[in-house]
Amino acid sequence: MNKYEKEIEVRGHLIDSSILTRIFDKVMDLKGDFTVKQFIIGKKKEDHSYARLLIRANSESHLSSILENLYREGATSISTDCVTCVEAPKDMVLPDDFYSTTNNATQIYFENTWINVERMMMDKCIVLDPVTKTAVCKTNREVKKGDLIVTGEKGIKIIPQERPREGVDIFQFMSSTSSSERPSQQIAKKVALDIVKTKQGSGKIILVAGPVVVHSGAAEIIAKMIRLGLVDGILSGNALAVHDIENALLGTSLGMHVNDGTLAIRGHRNHMVIVNEVFKFGSIKAMVESGRLKKGIMYECVKRNVPFVLCGSIRDDGPIPDVITDVVEAQMKYKSLLKDARLVIMLSTMLHSIAVGNMLPASVKVIAVDINQPVVTKLLDRGTTQAIGVVTDIGSFLPIVMKNIENLLSKG
Amino acid sequence: MNKYEKEIEVRGHLIDSSILTRIFDKVMDLKGDFTVKQFIIGKKKEDHSYARLLIRANSESHLSSILENLYREGATSISTDCVTCVEAPKDMVLPDDFYSTTNNATQIYFENTWINVERMMMDKCIVLDPVTKTAVCKTNREVKKGDLIVTGEKGIKIIPQERPREGVDIFQFMSSTSSSERPSQQIAKKVALDIVKTKQGSGKIILVAGPVVVHSGAAEIIAKMIRLGLVDGILSGNALAVHDIENALLGTSLGMHVNDGTLAIRGHRNHMVIVNEVFKFGSIKAMVESGRLKKGIMYECVKRNVPFVLCGSIRDDGPIPDVITDVVEAQMKYKSLLKDARLVIMLSTMLHSIAVGNMLPASVKVIAVDINQPVVTKLLDRGTTQAIGVVTDIGSFLPIVMKNIENLLSKG
Amino acid sequence: MNKYEKEIEVRGHLIDSSILTRIFDKVMDLKGDFTVKQFIIGKKKEDHSYARLLIRANSESHLSSILENLYREGATSISTDCVTCVEAPKDMVLPDDFYSTTNNATQIYFENTWINVERMMMDKCIVLDPVTKTAVCKTNREVKKGDLIVTGEKGIKIIPQERPREGVDIFQFMSSTSSSERPSQQIAKKVALDIVKTKQGSGKIILVAGPVVVHSGAAEIIAKMIRLGLVDGILSGNALAVHDIENALLGTSLGMHVNDGTLAIRGHRNHMVIVNEVFKFGSIKAMVESGRLKKGIMYECVKRNVPFVLCGSIRDDGPIPDVITDVVEAQMKYKSLLKDARLVIMLSTMLHSIAVGNMLPASVKVIAVDINQPVVTKLLDRGTTQAIGVVTDIGSFLPIVMKNIENLLSKG
Amino acid sequence: MNKYEKEIEVRGHLIDSSILTRIFDKVMDLKGDFTVKQFIIGKKKEDHSYARLLIRANSESHLSSILENLYREGATSISTDCVTCVEAPKDMVLPDDFYSTTNNATQIYFENTWINVERMMMDKCIVLDPVTKTAVCKTNREVKKGDLIVTGEKGIKIIPQERPREGVDIFQFMSSTSSSERPSQQIAKKVALDIVKTKQGSGKIILVAGPVVVHSGAAEIIAKMIRLGLVDGILSGNALAVHDIENALLGTSLGMHVNDGTLAIRGHRNHMVIVNEVFKFGSIKAMVESGRLKKGIMYECVKRNVPFVLCGSIRDDGPIPDVITDVVEAQMKYKSLLKDARLVIMLSTMLHSIAVGNMLPASVKVIAVDINQPVVTKLLDRGTTQAIGVVTDIGSFLPIVMKNIENLLSKG
Repeated sequence: MNKYEKEIEVRGHLIDSSILTRIFDKVMDLKGDFTVKQFIIGKKKEDHSYARLLIRANSESHLSSILENLYREGATSISTDCVTCVEAPKDMVLPDDFYSTTNNATQIYFENTWINVERMMMDKCIVLDPVTKTAVCKTNREVKKGDLIVTGEKGIKIIPQERPREGVDIFQFMSSTSSSERPSQQIAKKVALDIVKTKQGSGKIILVAGPVVVHSGAAEIIAKMIRLGLVDGILSGNALAVHDIENALLGTSLGMHVNDGTLAIRGHRNHMVIVNEVFKFGSIKAMVESGRLKKGIMYECVKRNVPFVLCGSIRDDGPIPDVITDVVEAQMKYKSLLKDARLVIMLSTMLHSIAVGNMLPASVKVIAVDINQPVVTKLLDRGTTQAIGVVTDIGSFLPIVMKNIENLLSKG
Repeated sequence: MNKYEKEIEVRGHLIDSSILTRIFDKVMDLKGDFTVKQFIIGKKKEDHSYARLLIRANSESHLSSILENLYREGATSISTDCVTCVEAPKDMVLPDDFYSTTNNATQIYFENTWINVERMMMDKCIVLDPVTKTAVCKTNREVKKGDLIVTGEKGIKIIPQERPREGVDIFQFMSSTSSSERPSQQIAKKVALDIVKTKQGSGKIILVAGPVVVHSGAAEIIAKMIRLGLVDGILSGNALAVHDIENALLGTSLGMHVNDGTLAIRGHRNHMVIVNEVFKFGSIKAMVESGRLKKGIMYECVKRNVPFVLCGSIRDDGPIPDVITDVVEAQMKYKSLLKDARLVIMLSTMLHSIAVGNMLPASVKVIAVDINQPVVTKLLDRGTTQAIGVVTDIGSFLPIVMKNIENLLSKG
Repeated sequence: MNKYEKEIEVRGHLIDSSILTRIFDKVMDLKGDFTVKQFIIGKKKEDHSYARLLIRANSESHLSSILENLYREGATSISTDCVTCVEAPKDMVLPDDFYSTTNNATQIYFENTWINVERMMMDKCIVLDPVTKTAVCKTNREVKKGDLIVTGEKGIKIIPQERPREGVDIFQFMSSTSSSERPSQQIAKKVALDIVKTKQGSGKIILVAGPVVVHSGAAEIIAKMIRLGLVDGILSGNALAVHDIENALLGTSLGMHVNDGTLAIRGHRNHMVIVNEVFKFGSIKAMVESGRLKKGIMYECVKRNVPFVLCGSIRDDGPIPDVITDVVEAQMKYKSLLKDARLVIMLSTMLHSIAVGNMLPASVKVIAVDINQPVVTKLLDRGTTQAIGVVTDIGSFLPIVMKNIENLLSKG
Repeated sequence: MNKYEKEIEVRGHLIDSSILTRIFDKVMDLKGDFTVKQFIIGKKKEDHSYARLLIRANSESHLSSILENLYREGATSISTDCVTCVEAPKDMVLPDDFYSTTNNATQIYFENTWINVERMMMDKCIVLDPVTKTAVCKTNREVKKGDLIVTGEKGIKIIPQERPREGVDIFQFMSSTSSSERPSQQIAKKVALDIVKTKQGSGKIILVAGPVVVHSGAAEIIAKMIRLGLVDGILSGNALAVHDIENALLGTSLGMHVNDGTLAIRGHRNHMVIVNEVFKFGSIKAMVESGRLKKGIMYECVKRNVPFVLCGSIRDDGPIPDVITDVVEAQMKYKSLLKDARLVIMLSTMLHSIAVGNMLPASVKVIAVDINQPVVTKLLDRGTTQAIGVVTDIGSFLPIVMKNIENLLSKG
């Protein structure tokens, strides 16, 4: 008998959410072998299934690498071991065998209980506090010398995201196909419905927005969403703020009149004039409070106390004082604002959207809108069933979304 | 003294429309040399300029190849020679030295007069009728044995398209930039304005439309444009007609309900069911006349006597009986419908749009709309200053165009 | 008890190839219900699984539409009924309830036997010959009055394509990811391996090639593949042939010298000169036999008796006499050449590649190469596990493939 | 007589480099008027032309805005005024009427001399040192209280970049067309030639490289370029370094074996393992010096003292200690390394490439390589005639470039 074998089990919508398919795939991709010891299929669509499998490998390390992959898909070993931890040898340095996280809900088994890991993100580590019996997902830069870091694969359970089935929102609507095959007016309607329903359920909505929002003429739509109380935070960079304030103060975006599309006289300076203007006041908030800035996305954020985080990038002009120029600090601020978000809407910004995607647990709904198909594909490719992509032109699409939101709100 | 030299002259907005720049470019690209003998610059913006240049080359053939290029940019030789012609040796076969056309307005010098060449298209030949003193641009397949084909480069004058300067339409608006840098709502407004103004001037408007029009939910917009008398012809293929009739009869497009985006039961059959249905009736016209087809793009065309040409392609399902399956015959029908068109609107179909682009003289205005930037770039790359591209999502964009058209029409 | 219910069964790699997941999906998408009556899971990776399910619906038509979908995924009803057929009422017209095919291997139950349907393609019909007890998949235009057309869904069994598992070829290599995430040199190696192995197994290889092949400088690579006996047929259009002959006779492609990338003197004429030249000789074959054409892709095809089919399109210049201008006739020639193909390689031509994709059974391997990601995505989206896409630049990629082929062949 | 008028003059290849066309365009775009007072055309291709124009406007501000635009195109006023300057009121704050720079070579007229402005970049300001009579282009964040900032438009002369005409390099080769219409092998040859010639002339070459370089299997090519002394600096971010070290230490890139394209066991951890490894050593340099890192791009940089700047971004994993997390500091380091660069090669990274594009004077040659056409278009759209784009697959293209470099070097 082969001694490099181990029994594992897995529960849930194994067929419907393709969990069992992925487990079989992994074993075969990794050249392992399996025998199904028991399989109880959910008799009806709402029932969970259960499977018990014997996994066989060629060596201890082979077995262990197969198992690690299966655990990441939601399988657990039959006999639950306690999680193992090793102290971080220095600040920001992990023990070699650290457990690298997925973005799925995760539990660790410690002192006979399953502990939920908080703030799940992909490709991070887990820090256990044995005193409070809590665990949290952290980046390596957040780790302090002596932190107890989860290592190996024992005592870790992943609860894979199940595919949403019932409901009328955009996620249900789009589940089996991409947006370019669906009528745009309908998609806009569903996106509006999802926004309104999320807010009616008091869910937190975060926008990740690029400067195209302003340039394509949709700044007023976003400003209105903020006034209507539909936005709980904005994550972006220097360009969105500068374009938005240029639009508010000078009526242009990169020197083009947004209301009629013509080029402004001396318009090439406008972008830098605005950067200089914010430096004069010292901050966007000061511009609003002094009465200098009276409308637009940034104005509404200040007025309604909607938090925003502007992160610096190497291509920034300026950047204005509100921009957090240190990216590690900006990441922490982003993560803090994303806490408990229910719906994240990404509007035409690949850089910030990918950053946000990496920070989100798989359970958060994501709507990614961009005119470029490969960008949308890339944003969706994060192993979640809760993300949908809309390939469209933001300047044409957002006004239709807003009109639908207004219809829904007026109906109450 | 170098004997491989010749004097040429050129008139027009030489600076403003970059004509002189292109002439200098050509001489240098082809390693020739030039001296400016005379240059009279237009003193004011509405004035034409005039240049007389001495071109020098290394050999007779070198000179002749440089000259041919300059003639294509609008230059003419100082001493006008009569055009030369050679009889076509067989049907569809041209003499070796045939003159290959540009898409600019062209004249040939015959019996002391400049004759306009009719139906200009790019990369074709010119057939002279010495009796009626008329000339027409033809494809090689249209040439009959004995036709007098223009050869060489003598006695041919090209009038290059000048850059439009004044006016408020979309062509003026977009002249210096691509659409992705302009606000979508404004572009839609300008496109609407251009459509309405063209019709008010009794200009002929032709739509070139792909099936995405139906799938994205915009079929009703096109149907309304036809009802409003804004469309003088439709050029498309099998898929547009089949999708449109599927939408009209079954409410679906490729099996998806267009009104709410859900998938129809047994919807995968719908496409083929429609093909079969048209075969049963024998033609779209018969379906309309029998009362079977009661709405949609094709219905409106039949009802309003708006001609359409459906061209076959190798990827067609069916194709339905209305489709012209021979592409050479279809090309002739396309060209016939395009005669005297003032404005051509291309909606999300690369195949038919490129075909149409090849058939148009440079003076026809073209608006190309597609969500894919490289497609738009390719469509615009036809050496004309009269074409503009809009990178947008048709399902979101066309409804806004229609709303603007209705506003304009209601204002009278 | 609900009387709108029926038992079905399904066998195969139900988990591994996601067949059961798709069946569950379909029932739920269509708002039906199911109970799993029996499920025998394959114990080992090479074992088939078996499932017996009771499907419940709200009405007879609801049940029937659910069942039809499940049958298309490979399920069969427990009690096998004989297939039903209705005579075609006219040439090219099908009975209303015709069965619309998938591209999977399909059998029909007739006189107590399962008959394989020949020449499977998607979205076509099945014609039964009750005398010879054979069945063949046909387009509606091939149907003759009186042909026995399979209708409804009874007595039809689909054998879904299973996911390939073992082996070292490109299909195995690429199974879980797209090419843009793989090293190009490795992909080229695997593609070479697959070509060589297919030929060593006497498999038929068909190339579908666009003119970019010539323009990007790779014509000689394709010519060499033909000389090496690696190509059994070429499917393309007018442009490939004209570019290739322009390259062979004048060293240019659309007027650009392919060997050094500079523009040829009078090069703008070259394309039309070649069209005229082929018309003079009457055919490509005549040009080869007369000694006028001495190298290139078309030359090698004629010399090696490798069949080619050039299909006309609305955007053709010319087209040359070898082009089949009627698209329905061209479709038949395409299908005929594709018969029994094992491997189809699509090189930078969306139009012809989509056409070919529609003609292929799911079991044929397809490699689609294009620089444009959305084109590759579209080509792959045909419900097969046997197609892979490579997003690359053909002019850089094909020479590397050829170098690998030569290495493999020299090793024997 | 209209008093809102002014005479300007302009010299250079006015026709050939389209300078006069752009000047006429600007006047008309801005609804001004002009009269050509004098025009002396260069008689031969190497001669400069000269134009003197009277510009008329509707108001003082209209005139001034037109003139500002013309000055940006290289025109100067007939009577040269001294440049005007105003002190910066605070650190990082400019006077309101600051002059916003172009990326062309620029001179200011101060105390009867034309002073060259150093370190030209687009959209910045000019700081004059009246003591040393030097001027330098600075970002607003570099400005200190009391710095003399150039304002208005007087006394500023721009020397527009002229179109390169003679020569055999890639810039000449590609001048009139985009790469997708040229044979890839030829483009690779020309790029190689340009690299080798630049180094033979002791020109500084900077690479801007994204992680795709490693993932596509081309890291060894870049490493070899460094070994051959062809690279004077690398500008990139966290991902390039992490991928490169993962490749060097573990043979994988994001968990995929780069040598054969298969997925590594436990490969998903590799990326984070490398981040942790660099943190353990404290820096890439320490890893090289300790013998832990023995090959790859980063290794060669350390070994050959080739400077690199890694800039942080919000989407970084880690980032590793070598990354400059403050983007303003990183911008300064980027600019410092770019000083006096002759050739900048951008490889598949939009973020860093756009940043670098903004930092370069128009006279620096730029080669931008990416598989995505819109990315290349965006990178080239910086108003320079010295930039060319290559749309290709880096993993296939770079090996061909290297082979050509080796051929050129072996020939001496």
